[in-house]
Amino acid sequence: MPVRTGVIGVGLMGAEHARLLSHAVSGSEVSAVFDVDTQRAETAAASSDSRVLDDPMVLIKDDAVDAVLIASSDDTHEQFVLACLAAGKPVLCEKPLAPDVDGCLRILQAESDAGRQLVSVGFMRRYDPGYGELKDALRGGALGRALLMHCVHRNSAAPGQSSATLISGSAVHEIDTARWLLDEELLTVTVHRPRASAGSGAMQDPMLLVFASASGVLVDVEVFLNAAYGYDVRCEVVGEAGTVLLDSPAPTSRRVAGQFTRALPADWRSRFAEAYRLELQDWVDGIAAAEPVRGASAWDGYVATEVAGAGIRAFGTGGRQDVVLRDKPALYR
Amino acid sequence: MPVRTGVIGVGLMGAEHARLLSHAVSGSEVSAVFDVDTQRAETAAASSDSRVLDDPMVLIKDDAVDAVLIASSDDTHEQFVLACLAAGKPVLCEKPLAPDVDGCLRILQAESDAGRQLVSVGFMRRYDPGYGELKDALRGGALGRALLMHCVHRNSAAPGQSSATLISGSAVHEIDTARWLLDEELLTVTVHRPRASAGSGAMQDPMLLVFASASGVLVDVEVFLNAAYGYDVRCEVVGEAGTVLLDSPAPTSRRVAGQFTRALPADWRSRFAEAYRLELQDWVDGIAAAEPVRGASAWDGYVATEVAGAGIRAFGTGGRQDVVLRDKPALYR
Amino acid sequence: MPVRTGVIGVGLMGAEHARLLSHAVSGSEVSAVFDVDTQRAETAAASSDSRVLDDPMVLIKDDAVDAVLIASSDDTHEQFVLACLAAGKPVLCEKPLAPDVDGCLRILQAESDAGRQLVSVGFMRRYDPGYGELKDALRGGALGRALLMHCVHRNSAAPGQSSATLISGSAVHEIDTARWLLDEELLTVTVHRPRASAGSGAMQDPMLLVFASASGVLVDVEVFLNAAYGYDVRCEVVGEAGTVLLDSPAPTSRRVAGQFTRALPADWRSRFAEAYRLELQDWVDGIAAAEPVRGASAWDGYVATEVAGAGIRAFGTGGRQDVVLRDKPALYR
Amino acid sequence: MPVRTGVIGVGLMGAEHARLLSHAVSGSEVSAVFDVDTQRAETAAASSDSRVLDDPMVLIKDDAVDAVLIASSDDTHEQFVLACLAAGKPVLCEKPLAPDVDGCLRILQAESDAGRQLVSVGFMRRYDPGYGELKDALRGGALGRALLMHCVHRNSAAPGQSSATLISGSAVHEIDTARWLLDEELLTVTVHRPRASAGSGAMQDPMLLVFASASGVLVDVEVFLNAAYGYDVRCEVVGEAGTVLLDSPAPTSRRVAGQFTRALPADWRSRFAEAYRLELQDWVDGIAAAEPVRGASAWDGYVATEVAGAGIRAFGTGGRQDVVLRDKPALYR
Repeated sequence: MPVRTGVIGVGLMGAEHARLLSHAVSGSEVSAVFDVDTQRAETAAASSDSRVLDDPMVLIKDDAVDAVLIASSDDTHEQFVLACLAAGKPVLCEKPLAPDVDGCLRILQAESDAGRQLVSVGFMRRYDPGYGELKDALRGGALGRALLMHCVHRNSAAPGQSSATLISGSAVHEIDTARWLLDEELLTVTVHRPRASAGSGAMQDPMLLVFASASGVLVDVEVFLNAAYGYDVRCEVVGEAGTVLLDSPAPTSRRVAGQFTRALPADWRSRFAEAYRLELQDWVDGIAAAEPVRGASAWDGYVATEVAGAGIRAFGTGGRQDVVLRDKPALYR
Repeated sequence: MPVRTGVIGVGLMGAEHARLLSHAVSGSEVSAVFDVDTQRAETAAASSDSRVLDDPMVLIKDDAVDAVLIASSDDTHEQFVLACLAAGKPVLCEKPLAPDVDGCLRILQAESDAGRQLVSVGFMRRYDPGYGELKDALRGGALGRALLMHCVHRNSAAPGQSSATLISGSAVHEIDTARWLLDEELLTVTVHRPRASAGSGAMQDPMLLVFASASGVLVDVEVFLNAAYGYDVRCEVVGEAGTVLLDSPAPTSRRVAGQFTRALPADWRSRFAEAYRLELQDWVDGIAAAEPVRGASAWDGYVATEVAGAGIRAFGTGGRQDVVLRDKPALYR
Repeated sequence: MPVRTGVIGVGLMGAEHARLLSHAVSGSEVSAVFDVDTQRAETAAASSDSRVLDDPMVLIKDDAVDAVLIASSDDTHEQFVLACLAAGKPVLCEKPLAPDVDGCLRILQAESDAGRQLVSVGFMRRYDPGYGELKDALRGGALGRALLMHCVHRNSAAPGQSSATLISGSAVHEIDTARWLLDEELLTVTVHRPRASAGSGAMQDPMLLVFASASGVLVDVEVFLNAAYGYDVRCEVVGEAGTVLLDSPAPTSRRVAGQFTRALPADWRSRFAEAYRLELQDWVDGIAAAEPVRGASAWDGYVATEVAGAGIRAFGTGGRQDVVLRDKPALYR
Repeated sequence: MPVRTGVIGVGLMGAEHARLLSHAVSGSEVSAVFDVDTQRAETAAASSDSRVLDDPMVLIKDDAVDAVLIASSDDTHEQFVLACLAAGKPVLCEKPLAPDVDGCLRILQAESDAGRQLVSVGFMRRYDPGYGELKDALRGGALGRALLMHCVHRNSAAPGQSSATLISGSAVHEIDTARWLLDEELLTVTVHRPRASAGSGAMQDPMLLVFASASGVLVDVEVFLNAAYGYDVRCEVVGEAGTVLLDSPAPTSRRVAGQFTRALPADWRSRFAEAYRLELQDWVDGIAAAEPVRGASAWDGYVATEVAGAGIRAFGTGGRQDVVLRDKPALYR
């Protein structure tokens, strides 16, 4: 019996999730789709052999929906996740779990009250084979203890972004990645402001964030959303005995017009296409096997929002900000 | 309704196919398994939620088998493919379609008689994203007309191989790849014999094959099965205006002990894991959509065996051998 | 007529300079050598066909000495440079010009009084072909305005270093490089302290320095002197329209034991061997042509010491420090 | 006392040699220049502080000429080398030593009669640091015995070339390099003809040559003179235990317009600039020290011409040609 997913929100990302769940993930079907844009919903339903439902709360409770994927606008995440918890259904929520800490805390409370983990947060980089190699390298011990991480996160363009969303929407990926790779929390954050690019408008872009982890690892993150030349994500972990670097992958190179060249990814969807597929396959497999949440949990979602918030405060004040986390509920220990 | 596949032969490769068809391909199930080794069949059946059948001919006719994957020993391929054609079922046969030209021709005849293409041959490189980029580069026109291809095909070890199987079992991948990339036939072949490696026993290893295509493109192929250092497949296409190169991929690099390093693939299964998955997904999708064969056809399987045979003759004689192909049956035009 | 150089200090670096000046630089000879270690002086003199003089002040005034190269201990630089100025002779002083700002200022005063530039400072990276390509890229305009620079400076080991000399002796190279590449001054500096490596003793190693230039370019510099795995210098300049990266060079790669590998430089001498030769050739050519100082000037030497001092203060206080430069004397404008 | 060189022929290459000998090589001067084009001779003389002589035979005998560099047209090499031998002066002759075997043999005879080696041939790749790393890798033993060499030699354009000069003027570099790296002779050669590029006119371009060495190492060489995209020289040596690859070097890379890029060398002069300098420095050092010829000898020059001749015959016949070498005179053993 395939796992039947209801998808809430089928914009760019949600439509891709629906496509993967219906056509690229084993043991998976899409059974219902909701979007505020009915036309968009109908297109996604048609291409995933599913129905359009016109009420997301009805979708969540539908008998033909075993699990829910949330890819609607950020401010709607909390209510839908809470409804899934109320319905006792596994839910994969695109980041952020909720844009504000209070929303995240309400989810943690509800899930703790339910007594079992049903919530996954879509930090898909944990499923990227390249990040997996970084994790393996750190576990393997050949690099010694980690001391530094240098991260680069560049987009070619960023319409509609602000200095705050640069942190909460983009740097948040490095926040989750660093916590996951280092297996510890980030405790402080400082933000440096370079000269802004001409195309960045009122936004501070690029930005350089420097985090310190519990054990003292420094994580510096350049986020540059109007990098113009392309999409480019890099991460180097520096250990006492060696380093490991993840760079933008490209299987082929060309030699033309006096240049050796390799194409950079067009955007995050092509760069992380495999990560999204593996994330969904693992999510579906976990549901089918009735096994615990394997990717980022609601706790991870909460921490990401909390650390991003400290980053936004650090950006505002110019000084170093501490990250103050709530006690971790028993369910997540 | 998922496509239900019966798998004949679940050794290393067949077991991996069964795993992919049951756990990684959308819209796919494994419904039956056969292997001459009953223990092996039971293991594969258990992990793919399917039954063991003790007669491959019964499996092919089984009502719960919509399609057949053949990964048994080379000399059994012909009879199973013919039985699938007789049963009117789609079949994906691991290369070679048949080890000898006559066997291939009987299959072409049977499929022509049946009047529709049901046979696919497992030249999985056509689904590798890297080879796909080579194809795109050639199609795109930026390189101009192709003039040369330089291929390297190295394994770390090759127990039980001979000079003939080096060509028919390994170089045959480059034979199919070159035909597919260049979209034309290979007409001649010359074999050069370098000094043999100490570990190669009676086999000529490495070997350098030089093919010429219908339009005059030269394709040189180094095959080195006891390359000791690892698995390494490369392909450079040289055009009038530029070149494109596929090298062994690796998302991360390390810096340790005075060296910048990148891991090479362990073997062909890890190198082409994505190609195998995409091949099977496309095969299943084609069956579900009742669409024509998309990967290598029986004709492609026949030509590969014919060209490999010319290579083996060229190895024996030391001179250049022509490839003489039969007329292409109407079904494949 | 070759330029005859007297070399003061023939330790590791000075001996290499003497070798280059006598055997690898056109139009150049070594005419005299001084070292506090007479044995060392005699070895260097023998291999460069020159005489040992037992008084550096006598060497500076010697009629057979047209120009002076200073590679003695840091605290002796000032007196020798001043003596060269008094003697009216061109002098190339290894960095630092003087370890303290006051010493640098006395040299600026003396050179200004002399009314012509005779002092060059050995910031050899300005002659490295790789750094030259960075400069060309910035000048060329294809990258747009510079916004960020990411620098990595790692040594395999660092006996006898301290947190202060990590900045004044190692980071000082990036300080000069950034000023030269960006063609503007660094105005502020912040120092972040990651967890220290086990082998670093009382020293803070690695260290992350963040500079801001007059126009707002952020320059982050990781210095890691006990990086264990090797010598590794990298620099990426991020512009509005693109980036340029200098990495550790290696003309060849190997594939052995499951790995693609490239050797990293053994240390700074092999990494910058070509830069040292080109620096000395340019210095000698300038003297022969009676042309102005082309490399780093005394003013550059002063600024490097001033900025490094601000870095050391920033390290001590944990906060951001301003770099306060004296007015640039007319001679250097 | 510097070594005073007379330069015969100051076209593109000879002018560069004159520049290096007067401005980049230690212990070296240019004392006289000859060229059939007087204007060109005067320009070179002016920039190297030397005199123009209007008779090359007078130049060779001139008292102020300690050694001679020959960079005139190929067909003049023999007479000038013989004159240098008659004058008892060291001579560095650009390749070829002589375009025909008989000319080479007359030089071997004359040098043998003279009883000491005075002739060097300008196979500058022996001085390229990258080729030096290949040699070190082979000597080091980590790769095991060599079995194959794959060479690529591409120019962006080749006005005035023919199929024969493609071999004698371009492939000849790989011929010398292979002999030097493998430390043995090439015994046979076969030439394969790919489809010719549109821009190649009557010339067969590209061409694929396959040599076999005395111990059975196969050396395949793609020469492509109208490669359009740029200058590109590569060499991979495949050993029993691993491989080593020399590729076109570039210290920096850029990321612009959706691409990771590295510049390829403009032509052979920039690619081998360092090799030319080191070749000349070593030549001058050897003369100053009265030491034996260190680079390619007259014997090496003869063998290169002999092997290239076999290649031209193989191109003409389409079959494999043996290389038949004369007995090596005692002077070269």
